[in-house]
Formats: sequence, C-alpha cells, structure tokens
Amino acid sequence: MLNAVMGGVTTPLGYRAFGASAGIKANGNLDLALLVSDTPATAVAVFTVNKAQAAPVLVSREHLSASGGVARAIIANSGCANACTGDDGMRAARAMAEETARLLNCRATEVLVASTGVIGVGLPIEKILKALPSAVSGLAGDQGSAVARAIMTTDPFPKEAATEVHIGGRTVRIGGMAKGSGMIEPMMATMLAFVTTDAAVPAPLLNRALREAVDETFNAITVDGECSTNDSVMLLANGASGVAIDESTYGTFVRGLRSVCLELALGIVRGGEGATKLVTVNVTGAASLEDARRAAKAIANSLLVKTAIHGGDPNWGRLIAVAGRANVAFELSRAMVVIGSTVLFKNGQPHDEAAPEAAEYLKGTDILISVDLGAGSTSATVWTCDLSAEYVRINAEYRT
Amino acid sequence: MLNAVMGGVTTPLGYRAFGASAGIKANGNLDLALLVSDTPATAVAVFTVNKAQAAPVLVSREHLSASGGVARAIIANSGCANACTGDDGMRAARAMAEETARLLNCRATEVLVASTGVIGVGLPIEKILKALPSAVSGLAGDQGSAVARAIMTTDPFPKEAATEVHIGGRTVRIGGMAKGSGMIEPMMATMLAFVTTDAAVPAPLLNRALREAVDETFNAITVDGECSTNDSVMLLANGASGVAIDESTYGTFVRGLRSVCLELALGIVRGGEGATKLVTVNVTGAASLEDARRAAKAIANSLLVKTAIHGGDPNWGRLIAVAGRANVAFELSRAMVVIGSTVLFKNGQPHDEAAPEAAEYLKGTDILISVDLGAGSTSATVWTCDLSAEYVRINAEYRT
Repeated sequence: MLNAVMGGVTTPLGYRAFGASAGIKANGNLDLALLVSDTPATAVAVFTVNKAQAAPVLVSREHLSASGGVARAIIANSGCANACTGDDGMRAARAMAEETARLLNCRATEVLVASTGVIGVGLPIEKILKALPSAVSGLAGDQGSAVARAIMTTDPFPKEAATEVHIGGRTVRIGGMAKGSGMIEPMMATMLAFVTTDAAVPAPLLNRALREAVDETFNAITVDGECSTNDSVMLLANGASGVAIDESTYGTFVRGLRSVCLELALGIVRGGEGATKLVTVNVTGAASLEDARRAAKAIANSLLVKTAIHGGDPNWGRLIAVAGRANVAFELSRAMVVIGSTVLFKNGQPHDEAAPEAAEYLKGTDILISVDLGAGSTSATVWTCDLSAEYVRINAEYRT
Repeated sequence: MLNAVMGGVTTPLGYRAFGASAGIKANGNLDLALLVSDTPATAVAVFTVNKAQAAPVLVSREHLSASGGVARAIIANSGCANACTGDDGMRAARAMAEETARLLNCRATEVLVASTGVIGVGLPIEKILKALPSAVSGLAGDQGSAVARAIMTTDPFPKEAATEVHIGGRTVRIGGMAKGSGMIEPMMATMLAFVTTDAAVPAPLLNRALREAVDETFNAITVDGECSTNDSVMLLANGASGVAIDESTYGTFVRGLRSVCLELALGIVRGGEGATKLVTVNVTGAASLEDARRAAKAIANSLLVKTAIHGGDPNWGRLIAVAGRANVAFELSRAMVVIGSTVLFKNGQPHDEAAPEAAEYLKGTDILISVDLGAGSTSATVWTCDLSAEYVRINAEYRT
C-alpha cells in the first residue's frame, strides 16, 4: 500500500535540514541547502553522463567510494554550478564537504556535495564556509520546504514529494526534493534530486532500487534536450523506521521510491523554463523499447512539436514528421496520431474534421500526445513541456 | 576559376521559368514554380531520409527511375506540402506532372514534382491545373527571381545563387534556388533546392557531384534539428553550353556546384525562422569526422547555445556542456572554446576576463563559434542560426 503524503526530505524519521542564504545569489535568496541524517545512512547516487563533470560530482563520487556508500549529509548550493572551474573548483567542493564534516563531527567522505547554477564561474567558497555554522545550528525536522527552495535556480516553484509505504504492518517513509528547470534531459540521472528514507536497505538493493526508479522517472523527462554537467540524484536510507528491506519487500519499496521520483520529475517538467503545459508523450507500436524511447524523446524535444502545443495547434503532421525522422522502425500506412482522445491521423489518412476538438483539448495544461509507429507492440512514455517565447527570454538573458 | 555572378536557375543557357499565383496561398502570393529545360536534361536528385515521405518525393523518385535520369521540367508549389495525404495526395502529385508534360509535349516521367507547406492538408490540384497553361506560356529566361519567390513559405527572402566556371577556355554556368526556413536539418538532402547547369555531365558523374556538394552544404546546416517529409535537391544538366564534363574537369565543376549549393544553404540559415544571426560552428580536435560532425550538430541544435547567442551572452559553459554530452570523445582538460577570436576556456581553465570582448563580438550578425574537443585532429563545420522569441511566435501560430 502506498500513501502520497505532504512532505519532503525530512518526512522520513531521523533527517533534519536547513536552507540558508549564504550570499552566492546576488538577490539574497536561499542558496545553501544542508540535509543531515542523524545516524550514518546507506547512500547511493546516479550522476550525469556528461563528460564535462562538475567538481561536486567528482568529489561526491570519490566520497561514496571512499566511505563504502555511507553518508551523514548532503551539502548543496545554488547560484553557481562549480563546473569547468579547474583545480580551484575541486578545492572548493572538497572544502564544502570538509567544513560540513567538521561541524557535524563526521568524516569528510561521509558528506556528499552538489552545486547548480552558472557553469564556469568560481564558487565563492568563503561565503559558504561562513554560512555553514548557522546552517548546522539551525538544522530541524520541519525545514524540508526551505531546503527545497535553497537549491532552486530558474525554478518557478520548489519540488517536494513524500510517500508512506506499509510493510508488514509497519510504516516506511520516503521523501524527496528536486530542482530543474533548464538543461534538462537527464541521461542516467537528472538535475539535483535528493531522496531520503527511514527504511534500512542494504546498499546493493538500494542501488538497484534507485536505478530502477530513476530509469522511468528522471530519465524519462526532457525540457530542452540538454544533459547538464551537475546532474545528481542522491538517495539516503538511515533505517530510523526500524524496518529493513529485503528481496521479499523490495517491490513495495521500489514502487514507493518510484512514486516519489515521478512526482519530483513531473514537477521539474511542469516548472520547466517558460513552460505553460505538461506534455505526456506516449509512443506505442514500436519495434523495440529502444525505438519507443528514441521516438518519444525525439517528439518531446522537437521545437516544432513544442511550439505547436504552446500555440494550441493540433499539428499532427509535425508529429508524423518527427516519428519519420527519428531513426526508428516506422510504417506510415499503419501509424496513428491521437491528441487527448481525438484521432487525427490513422491508416495513412488525415482526420482533420476532428482538429477543432483537439484544438479545444490543447487549451488545457495537461496534454497527452499518443503516436503509434505502426511497427510493433512496444511502448514508452516521456514527459516534456511546451516551448514558449518566455523560454527564449529566460535563456537569452540568463547571465545578464 | 570560379566567378560568383548575379542570377539563379535561369542563368545557365537553355532554361526558362515562371512563378505563378495559383491561389493555394490564401494571401494571393506566388505559389507555383515552373522550371523548364529547353532540351531534355540529365537529372539527379537527393531526397529526404524521413520515413514519412511526401507524395511529390515518391513521384519524383519514380519518374527519375522510369526516365533513366532525364528531365525536362520541375513543377513545384508552396502553401501545401502534399505530405501524409494518402492516395489522393499521390494522384494529385501525378496530375501535376502529367498536365505539365502535356503542355510541354514531353513524357510525364520527364517532369519532377515538389511541394512545400503544411503537412497533412490535401493539395488543391484543380487550382494548379488551372494555373499551369499560363505558367507555360509565361516561361522566360528572366524569371529566376519570380520562380524563387514562388517556392517560399515562411522564408523572409528568396534564395538564389549562380556561378560561372571556366573549363578549357569555355564557360559553364551553374545556377540555383532554394527555400527554407523551418523543419531544417536536412539528412542527405534539404528543403527544396533546384540547381541547373548548362554543362553536359554524364549521369553517374552528375550524381557523384551532387552528393559531394550536398554533403558539405545542405547537409551541414540546421535551423531547428528537424528533417522534413519533403526535402529535395534536384539538379538538371542540359549541355546547352556545349561543354562536356568528364573526370578531368570534374573537380572544377564540383567546386562550382558546391559554391552555388553553399550560398543557397547559407541563405536558408540566414533566413531561418526568427533568425537574427548566422552562426558558423567549427569543431576541431575531434577523434573522427563522425565525432566532429556530431558535436557540431549538437552545438548547432542546442537551445541553450542558440538562445545565449541570441542574447549576446558569451556563455562558453553551455558550449562545453553540449560537447560533453554529445556522445563523442572529449577531454575537458584539453578542450578549448573560442568565440570569434577570443579564447574563453582553455586547458581546463575559464578565461572570463575576455568575456566583455566576446560579448562585443556577439553583437554582430555573423558569428563564429569554435570548440576544440581535445581528443584528436579532425574538424567539421556546421551552420545554424540563433533562436529568438520570434521563432516561437512563428511556429506557435503557423496554421492560425
């Protein structure tokens, strides 16, 4: 059984957090996020596959390896990605972890590090070191919302999710937070997402659960087809609930984990830069899962599809054109396009008489696009958002 | 020797053209283009690799095959792509060719057909058949500009180019026309481009020349990463100059052909939907030609890169991030980013002190972006345009 509940990373037992303003962002908004488990937690993570990996990604990888997959804390900042910053960047990422560890009285390798913001700008580490003591002294179990706001960049709203899973009459809690909202087409990972649970889960099982959950959630969304230098999903399991997960309860646990990841992932898409609509792209009739995913990603990343949806235009021709060029098995004579529940193209023939109905549907904010490739029986779903002039404004003026 | 000259498809000897208004476009603009060679010309073409091929593409393929690569005319319309239109669309495309052939007193298979405009809308063939007689009677050697305008859709200006090539003391002329300006990332072909020459060129040599020229011109541009259902490049060689091309003069001929194709291709990018800047993306230091092209295409299609350039922001971090996720060999510590001639990132270190100089350069309209992958010694060039809010407006409102 699965209950979505209000909450976030501090909903599971034994976690505290604090969101601070360290002055990295010029406007004084929250920009330093500290998440702490009261006891050492089993920790697993997936990171960007971008070959230009940011310093915090490299340091977090090192620490997970050196600690044998145990973590006490995650320290994250927004306002600066600390990516492509050379040796200075590595020193700064290490210093964040070391100072956090000193204040928490744990090993530096038990602290994971994350950053998000502009690439290529030096991290103002002195500001972070100065803000850390008060962040540690402010740690509390009701600061989930503040800490979720502290990792935002261009995100229009914070992303939090939590769920309760009942296992053998006892309750396990899973909570998470994430930030988007540009440079989003995670590959094996996503932008920053931190997930906590009070279940006790052996590291191999926790790792499997995270990869399984991420695959159909964070790895199935796209805002702009970009995979960032800093993408990181981190999952801590501290066992504070007293419930241990094993193979027999793994399925229940991973369903809960997936539901939290999906809610966070959809929040990232909904809050995509300039987004006004959440678009679910459902590809069916594919010859293989790879084809289904490839076609769905191609449709979800098509500027012409995203602008047509933004304009409320049921332009099924663009959907067919993308499916046709997506380098997948595709049979025009058996292909089908459905917007909402309105069939617009089937058996090689347009059904433009239905276009007004589809146009009416496209005025909504939650849009389902279904494309059947007519080449098999496999399907996949990808989530994206529309493309607005506001997206261009945000990204043309990001640093100015 | 190569002389760029003013002109277009009727600059080579023995070609006449006419641009008519058949009423396909509601606004009464030119929408029917007829290009005729006075004598049967050797004809070769490359077409879209999109699996949803439009009726005119299928019919032109058939005709080239049935005629053994001989053509008298190209009949093209704008305002309707005649794509995804089923059997009616095939009948309409054939009827365009048949009526043109009847009026020119040649075989239908000697007429090539092309269409561009909205996908999935039925072609108003009666309007075309009605307009054809006056198009034929209006054919003239000075109508190159009119016929180039007659294939425009959202293009802000017509694209024409011509050159003279001197071979053994005699002159061969090559002329061309093209239209863009959305759904542009040609794969083995481009949007509509028609090229003529008065050289006599055996079909196999002409075919090789076209593929060679297209590869580094039309196949090296992108506006929005989309490959259309109707992309066609057609090349006619009627021999009217009396000059025959053979292996010994092939190199000179193909250089002339490539120069015409490049001018048309750059015109398409310059006239890309909402474009305000022509961007040359030069990738060096690649491990292979495939890597170089893949990285250059990834950069050229990146929304974050295109919006940054639109906003005049020398955001080299986005260039590194795209290179890092482009699935090519990439070494961050040896990579380099140069905007114009300003080095912004080298040997793993930012050079942000040079950012103001790069920002000043980005105010121009012809922008060179150079990215060295630090992984080898191969290079490739791709041309693209910036992404503006105007692009979104055009494509959100295309059919309304």
